[in-house]
Order: sequence, then structure tokens, then C-alpha cells
Amino acid sequence: MKKVTILGSTGSIGQNALSVIDNFNDQFRVVGLSANKNSKLLVEQVKKYQPKFVSIVDRNSADFVEEKLSSFDVKILKGRKGLLELASYENIDLLLNALVGSAGMEPTISAIRSKVDVALSNKESLVMAGSIINDLAIRNGVKIFPVDSEHSAIWQCLTGEDNNEINKIILTGSGGPFRTISIKEFNTITPEQALKHPNWDMGNKITIDSATMMNKGLEVIEAYWLFNLPTEKIEIVIHPQSIIHSMVEFKDKSIKAQLGLPDMKIPIQYALTYPSHHEANWKELDLTEIHSLTFEKPDFKKFPCMRLAFDVLDAGGTAPAVLNVANEQAVYKFLNKEISFNEIPKIIEMACEKHELVSAPSIDEILNIEIWATNFVKSYHSKN
Amino acid sequence: MKKVTILGSTGSIGQNALSVIDNFNDQFRVVGLSANKNSKLLVEQVKKYQPKFVSIVDRNSADFVEEKLSSFDVKILKGRKGLLELASYENIDLLLNALVGSAGMEPTISAIRSKVDVALSNKESLVMAGSIINDLAIRNGVKIFPVDSEHSAIWQCLTGEDNNEINKIILTGSGGPFRTISIKEFNTITPEQALKHPNWDMGNKITIDSATMMNKGLEVIEAYWLFNLPTEKIEIVIHPQSIIHSMVEFKDKSIKAQLGLPDMKIPIQYALTYPSHHEANWKELDLTEIHSLTFEKPDFKKFPCMRLAFDVLDAGGTAPAVLNVANEQAVYKFLNKEISFNEIPKIIEMACEKHELVSAPSIDEILNIEIWATNFVKSYHSKN
Repeated sequence: MKKVTILGSTGSIGQNALSVIDNFNDQFRVVGLSANKNSKLLVEQVKKYQPKFVSIVDRNSADFVEEKLSSFDVKILKGRKGLLELASYENIDLLLNALVGSAGMEPTISAIRSKVDVALSNKESLVMAGSIINDLAIRNGVKIFPVDSEHSAIWQCLTGEDNNEINKIILTGSGGPFRTISIKEFNTITPEQALKHPNWDMGNKITIDSATMMNKGLEVIEAYWLFNLPTEKIEIVIHPQSIIHSMVEFKDKSIKAQLGLPDMKIPIQYALTYPSHHEANWKELDLTEIHSLTFEKPDFKKFPCMRLAFDVLDAGGTAPAVLNVANEQAVYKFLNKEISFNEIPKIIEMACEKHELVSAPSIDEILNIEIWATNFVKSYHSKN
Repeated sequence: MKKVTILGSTGSIGQNALSVIDNFNDQFRVVGLSANKNSKLLVEQVKKYQPKFVSIVDRNSADFVEEKLSSFDVKILKGRKGLLELASYENIDLLLNALVGSAGMEPTISAIRSKVDVALSNKESLVMAGSIINDLAIRNGVKIFPVDSEHSAIWQCLTGEDNNEINKIILTGSGGPFRTISIKEFNTITPEQALKHPNWDMGNKITIDSATMMNKGLEVIEAYWLFNLPTEKIEIVIHPQSIIHSMVEFKDKSIKAQLGLPDMKIPIQYALTYPSHHEANWKELDLTEIHSLTFEKPDFKKFPCMRLAFDVLDAGGTAPAVLNVANEQAVYKFLNKEISFNEIPKIIEMACEKHELVSAPSIDEILNIEIWATNFVKSYHSKN
């Protein structure tokens, strides 16, 4: 039995992970579950999976959870501190970190310090603290398994291969909902338009990231740390059908790709069952039905967020953390209609320029930068 | 130093293999070379690579070889017997069998009996005697490395994976030059038209096989033996651009594909340098330049040769050998304008129906069947 904790179990990734576990309930034991504030679903999940621990971050939702679970043998952990306590629990085999945003960084570090392998859906962990996390993982003998479809694809393509023989990796991206829309119309884009993603069904924050293509930028940073590759070996190719999830080119120009229907359950299951491809009953890809796969070069002018991601990797230190936090805050401002779509990359770039770079930051320094960048964006007032 | 013999060194695969070796001449030592009758090129190759042995099958060409190489320290092996002697030489690490047609079967068996790993470009070896070759390979601890681009793709996709987790393999095929031509016009197809292949530059026999799609049929049989899969786990998908060289679908519906420009040097080099992807200076694939990859279901009515391949696998025993030999003879008859394009599959089907099946044949029985099927097709007179 593989003992698993899922952070963010009420979100899209968390729910999919539990549905994967449902198919192999003789192989997994759910030890911990966590939610931010979806207390109703969390209570249902606790009743079904009977974990030892449950964490609810939002204090206002904690009372409901305590009341509904009063007769259950489960330890209820409250607030941010409770979440970190759950993430630090040592007696599990795998922690799936499906938290959204930079709040996911510390739990990843807690798990690694407790010598627990991490299935990482929270890309911000590596974006914020890639260097620290990689060092800690090596020192603690911990493995990090990607859950993002792109990184899972690269990871699968690298099975049995020598990473020194990689020529480059090719991250594919759908191009988002505004791929074919003229840059002139970008200023009028509304949150409602940006929330309609052509291929993937995801949360709000990540859907906006997909519209600005910051999502692809964050994935570049994540890949940089996951696969230990310099930026010149990381390429983005636009592939609107989202069927090829990413590729690896080796030194002999042989390319391996991983393909599938756009369903997060495949990479989630693989991270849970690695190195085995367990049976699955979901629909299989029929390329003759899709008929055509197309590829384009990414447009860095139209989507400057991608360029910013390469820039902060070159700058190093705290720069990627600033990019990430500034992006998060800018996205919320856009969703609240406080700024225009076009202002998202502008604010991020301003934050990156203004911040004082720390080249080899500690976790505390990263957390300080998080506060600084949050305040920087919050105090920004729209010019439009 | 890897000691290598190349059978068929003057053919397209053989020449490409030598050009790969040129790039790594500190890693390979060419011990043996062989040609059918291209004595001029063979002599040049011997002068350049200075092998211990050279085999020339055509007796009329042997004198020329002997004369030109009289001052060289190389043993000249003549005729079919000489070829088999070369293939049996034990003191090498890898034999690349790039012979064309069923003549390649016995040399493969000779190498395996001498406990030499085989890089197999001669697909007819497995088509004719797959069961015998697999048994011999296991008994002699010999590995068989595919050289065909499709099988190399599958082999690469299976690196580090468990073959028991394969859901199916998907062999891609360009569809040949007559993919978009109406079946009504098939009777008027000339050898000249059939010899124009859209993507690959290959020998005459294999180019006609590509036009009839028997090439894909033979590849199905080869895959059956190479990867130990039942016919229902082998699928053909038409992919006119020949960029995805083949795919593997695992039990979790995750698909891995191997891609590259249509250049045989990639799979040839991989078979020589396995398990390493050595540096290569040839052009890399740029998917944004190709822009679109398309996929169609294969048309078994228009190209009955594919169906015949599945049929003979189901029949088992000597049936695939009959299909292969009858096809070879039919192709030569077509190239000699003795029969029409449409008669190729008809003759093969007739031969398969007429022959007396031996279910677990010996090599001698396969060789007898070869004579029988050759005569059967030779005595056929066109009905057109």
C-alpha cells in the first residue's frame, strides 16, 4: 500500500487524483487531505477516504469541518500552520502537492525535509525556490515527480535515457484563447473571455496564465529546475490541439514525444503509479479522428510573459520568485477588473526591474520578496 | 572499439551505416563488408575501411574484386557460401544485416548461431523465420536491434519501459505514392510511377513494396516478432509526412512517439551506438517548418497487401514466408512489366491459398517453401 497525502484535494487536480485512487484502492491509502476553504467537499472526501489527518486553511471554514467530522477519527489541522504540519508528516510514501500559487512552496519544502517524495503539481514551488528545493531533494534523497502534463511528458520521454544526451526539450503550448486574435484587440480583453480555454478545464488563475501565456513561462522555469537544463536547451512550440504534451530531442536529433487526449488524469496517475503505466479505462487518443496536428513558433511580442520567464532565469536568484508573485497579484487584479489584460506583463516587468535581486536567497528571503512583490502590485493603479 | 560487419555495404543502408561510422572512427572497427555485385564500390570501401573480410556474392564480379584487391590484406569470400561464412564469423560485436529480400534470412541465423548481436535492416529475416530466429536468439543470448525507422521508433519508445504494459503499437506509414489515387486507376500504374516515393529514398524493391503497402504489411510481421505482440495489438495509421516514425500506447493510454526528419541515418546510428544517442550533425526536425502532421485510417480494400500480412500471421507457420517470397517475385514481375500493379496482391493471395502450410517449420522447410513460392509466381501468366 502506498501511503499518500493530497494537498489541495478539493481542487481540480486533487479531485482527479482521488478518482485515480478509486480505481486502485488496494494499492493506495489516503493518509492526509487538505483544502483551502471548500469545507463541504473536504468533509465528503474525509468520510469516503478516512484519512488520519485533514487540513483546512481558512479559519472560517474550520468550524464547519470540526462539527461535521466530530464523530470521525481524524485529526483536524487548522490554518496555514496546520497545512505545514500535514506537509511535514513523515510516515507517508508520497505527497501530492496540488496547491495553487506560491502558497504551495513551503509545503513542498516541508515534505522534502521529512524525506517524502513529492508529486508536484504546484509549479510555483520550483519557480519560487528551484535551487533550494533541488539542493534539499538531493540532500534528503527525495524524488520529485512532475504532474503538469508538459513535464510529465518530458519525464516519460526520458525514461531509461541519459539526461546528458538531451539536445533540447520542446514544451508545447496550446497558445491559449487569444492565439489568433490581433494584438490590437488585447486591451479590450475581459476576464470572461480569458477564462474560456479551448482544450483544458482548469482553475481560474491557471486559465488566465494560459491566456497571457505566463503558464508556459512558468513551465519553462519549472523545466529548468526539474531537468537541470540551461535556458538555451528549452524551447516553446505552439501546438493548438494540445495532443503532443511535450518532446525531448536527443543529441542524434531523434525526438521523443508523449501524446494523449488532454486529460490531467494521465499525468496524475503516472505520478502516483510511477514507474508503471497502470490500466486506465478513459478514452484513448485516436489520431485519425483528430486528423491534424499543427505547430507554430511562439509569438514573444504578443505574449511578453514568455520572454519575461527566460529573462528571470538569466537574472537568477530571487527574480523568478518576483515574476511569479507579481503575476499572481496581477492576475487577481485583472480578474477583479482593476487592470487591463495588457497591464499584466507590464506590472510584472516593472516589479522585476524594481526589486533588489538577492542572488542566492534563503527561504526567508524568498518569503520577504513575496511580501514585497505582493505590496508592489497591490499599490499599482491602472493607467487605463 | 566495437567490431562491426556490414552485409550489403554497397546498398543504401550499408552506405549510410559507413557514413555514420565515419563520424565515430575511434569507436568502430569495420571487420567485414559484403556486396551482391557492386564490385566497384565494394573495392573502394575495402580500401577505405580495410576490413579483414570482404564477401562478393556474384561470381562474375569476384574476379574484378580479386584483381583490384590483390595487394590488400583482406580475405575475399565468394558466392553465397562466402556470404554465409562472413555472417558466421564470431569475433565481432555487431553484424548489420542490410541485405535486401529473403536472401538475408540465413545470414541472420548464422550470426545468431555465432552469438553475435544483429542490427537488422533485413526485415525478411523475421518475416520468413521469426519463430526460429527468436528461439535461437534467446538460446544464444543474442540481441536483435531494429534498423527500420518504424521499429527503431518503437524500440526507442520502449526504452526503460515494461513491455507488459503495452496496450498497442501504432506503425505509421506514408501511404505511398498512390494514397490519393482512385482504386479505379490502379490497373494502369507503371513501374516508373510506383518508383517515385514521396518521402524516403530507398531501393527499387522496397519502393514498390511501399506503393502496394506490402512494406507496411511486412513491418507488421516484423513488429509481431520483434516485440512479441499479438496481431490485435498492432495497428497501422497513415501519416503522409513520415515525421512520426511510430508510436507505443501504454495501458494508461499514454502514447510515446519517436519523431525525426525522414533520414535513415538516425535509426542506423542508434542501432550502432545503442543505448546511447550519439551527437549527429544532420539537420534537425523543426515542426513549425513542417507546420502540419496528418493522420488517416489505412485503406485495406485499396491496399490488400496489408490485410494479407495480418492474415498470414493468423495462419502462422510457413504462411508469412510464402507471402514474402511470392511478393518478392511478383514485384520483380511487375518491374519487368510482366504483370499489372493490381496483380501483385492477387498472386500473393493465390500463393498463400495454394501452399501446404507447415505449422512449425525447420529452416530447410522454409527454404523449400521459398523454392516452391518462387516457382509458383514464376509460372504465373498475366491475365491482363
